[in-house]
Amino acid sequence: MSLTVDAPTTRSARRRPDLVSALRAPQGFGDATLRDRAPDAIELLGGIPDPSVLPADELAAATARVLARPGLAALQYSRTQGISPLREWVAAREGVPVERVLVTNGGFHGLSLAVQAVVERGATVAVDNPVFPLFLRGLELSDARVAPVPVGAHGIDVEALADLLRGGLRPAALYTVPDFHNPSQGTLPTEQRRALVRLAEHYGFVVLADNPYRELRFRGTPQDVEPFNTSSHVVHVNTFTKTLGPGLRLGWVVLPDDLAADVAALRARQDGHSSTFVQAVVGELVTSDPDLFDRVLDTARALYRRRSDALADALEAAAPGAFRVERPEGGLFLWPEIADPDVDPEVLAADAAAEGVLYQRGSFFPSGPGTDAHRHLRLSFGDTSEARLVEAARRLGRAVRRQR
Amino acid sequence: MSLTVDAPTTRSARRRPDLVSALRAPQGFGDATLRDRAPDAIELLGGIPDPSVLPADELAAATARVLARPGLAALQYSRTQGISPLREWVAAREGVPVERVLVTNGGFHGLSLAVQAVVERGATVAVDNPVFPLFLRGLELSDARVAPVPVGAHGIDVEALADLLRGGLRPAALYTVPDFHNPSQGTLPTEQRRALVRLAEHYGFVVLADNPYRELRFRGTPQDVEPFNTSSHVVHVNTFTKTLGPGLRLGWVVLPDDLAADVAALRARQDGHSSTFVQAVVGELVTSDPDLFDRVLDTARALYRRRSDALADALEAAAPGAFRVERPEGGLFLWPEIADPDVDPEVLAADAAAEGVLYQRGSFFPSGPGTDAHRHLRLSFGDTSEARLVEAARRLGRAVRRQR
Repeated sequence: MSLTVDAPTTRSARRRPDLVSALRAPQGFGDATLRDRAPDAIELLGGIPDPSVLPADELAAATARVLARPGLAALQYSRTQGISPLREWVAAREGVPVERVLVTNGGFHGLSLAVQAVVERGATVAVDNPVFPLFLRGLELSDARVAPVPVGAHGIDVEALADLLRGGLRPAALYTVPDFHNPSQGTLPTEQRRALVRLAEHYGFVVLADNPYRELRFRGTPQDVEPFNTSSHVVHVNTFTKTLGPGLRLGWVVLPDDLAADVAALRARQDGHSSTFVQAVVGELVTSDPDLFDRVLDTARALYRRRSDALADALEAAAPGAFRVERPEGGLFLWPEIADPDVDPEVLAADAAAEGVLYQRGSFFPSGPGTDAHRHLRLSFGDTSEARLVEAARRLGRAVRRQR
Repeated sequence: MSLTVDAPTTRSARRRPDLVSALRAPQGFGDATLRDRAPDAIELLGGIPDPSVLPADELAAATARVLARPGLAALQYSRTQGISPLREWVAAREGVPVERVLVTNGGFHGLSLAVQAVVERGATVAVDNPVFPLFLRGLELSDARVAPVPVGAHGIDVEALADLLRGGLRPAALYTVPDFHNPSQGTLPTEQRRALVRLAEHYGFVVLADNPYRELRFRGTPQDVEPFNTSSHVVHVNTFTKTLGPGLRLGWVVLPDDLAADVAALRARQDGHSSTFVQAVVGELVTSDPDLFDRVLDTARALYRRRSDALADALEAAAPGAFRVERPEGGLFLWPEIADPDVDPEVLAADAAAEGVLYQRGSFFPSGPGTDAHRHLRLSFGDTSEARLVEAARRLGRAVRRQR
């Protein structure tokens, strides 16, 4: 075949779709350029579970069992919503019909699917202020406008949200972390959950309730998830990330009936379904020994309580009066406030890095004006030993003293 | 807190985003309502690898090794593009810099990411005619217009494409399956690959070269992938689906340099990265024993050659003269044409189902007018034993005789 083109070969400019043009380079939180570190730096950066409380041996044993089964269903295609044993286990634990459960590749994936299925391009989304910054990055998929809603000591301020709605705010969705708010660590009381859901149903928006830390409560009183699982206006986003390991990339969403089909249709056109292999292994893990998951949680909670207290104690010892430390009831973060007005938070972060301790600066978390987040530090204690946490506090203490 | 809303609670109508409104209910291929089956029906429906040639024991052993490593990196977060050992193995096999490789959740996911990163909403995409129907479903993510391009005995007709382009067609992308075309089984010769890439570079579109069956060649001469891996205008989509198992949900794309950042940015906002666990297991599998993957392929190719020949022989024996059977050079499908003009293809499919054999009708595959695809059957032989394939051919023979 002779193939001729009519003109000299010149590379034509490709037009980038609006979808990708709206994705902006990360700044602040998650910016890899900020991750340069001293060789022995202590990283208190991410919500990372400790390897010692992940059930590695049990996962290996479950894998051997599912790969020994005739027909090898674990290596074959499966349905978009997830494999039955895992979906049924999740549905029973959530107290919802199995049809409302869709298995995801982790919590962020659940948020991303919900954003794409719920938020029209350019629409407005109400979000926590301060907020988990990666959610804002996910919102870029819908090129959404952000409406910040204040977060107080007990999670999102539902009364403030009601005022904004009365004032004309009409969001397509609202994003909040109800248990151990990220970053500010408060938990939304059950009654406020109900009020939030009533607002969503009245004004016609969808609550994206992001609950990755929910199972890691180590003190205080649990607040109900039932308001989130019984409303037609909530997507309840959950994951095994903080309990069985982020690397599995396995989570789930509880969807309202009228969203389940849209999310499944979208998912079927993206990656089809979560790894059958991972689902089969985790499904086998949690169903073959019905108490195992709770035993894993008990061990993890005890570890994180000790680490949380160790870090809080060490901060108070290493830098007396420098921080106001609210002890969290669960999760993987401390959110101390810089109490000394002479200490500049950005200078402190730079000095701390020089001393060999890295954390997420509070200034990465506001979604709008009006918060004191920039006066806080987000310190992760999940995957750092008590001894290293004490050393991290000492380094922070030295960093504080550079300004005092 | 007393929370009042100004009006009786009424459920406000939620507006569905255009993204999900454009997703249509599947018809034909993949329509679950067509999957109702007799209890002992033989399913020749999907491109499914046989469990006997998937390395289950080796996967279990690799899992045990990665889960025994200190620090349990296999259970932790990893980077969007994929973990280094696996990416490097893929890059070496493809002969490209590692920066151009992004690990996906299987071949369809690679196509989906490419569509989203390359195709503006409402743009035109040139596609094989006949075409793998699930690709058209993926295109709904960009609500794209489809421009069919004829496929001949050796894959997409590049001369016909050139005519369409000279006539004014300006697609954002072109989709084709170059090796063992799905459904029609031809392979695009190396020289036509080069011509196709020249057209893409000249007219400024991106070739989506979908290559899931590439490693399953069991006769004939391989054609080069090098034209796809050396152009700035090709996304080369690959997967472990047909070789190590669909349920892993693991594949990769080779991206042009100027698309790599956009695809990674999109991926970072969808599910973040493929399961570190699956990547670590497969990376360990293919790197710990450098010959293992090729041994798996050799065993699989031998099996599929036998099954392909067994089905072709049995069809000719069971329904002499009813079909023209072109023996494929690889892959998992036969694409026989109904030779007898008195045999109606849709009646045959219904009769075959009644006799207990299910396949994909050729009428599911056209992307536009001008093909004889509706006179063909797509018969999958991957996961059906030779004895069952012979029985399937007998049942098809009985179905043919109902019309003769």
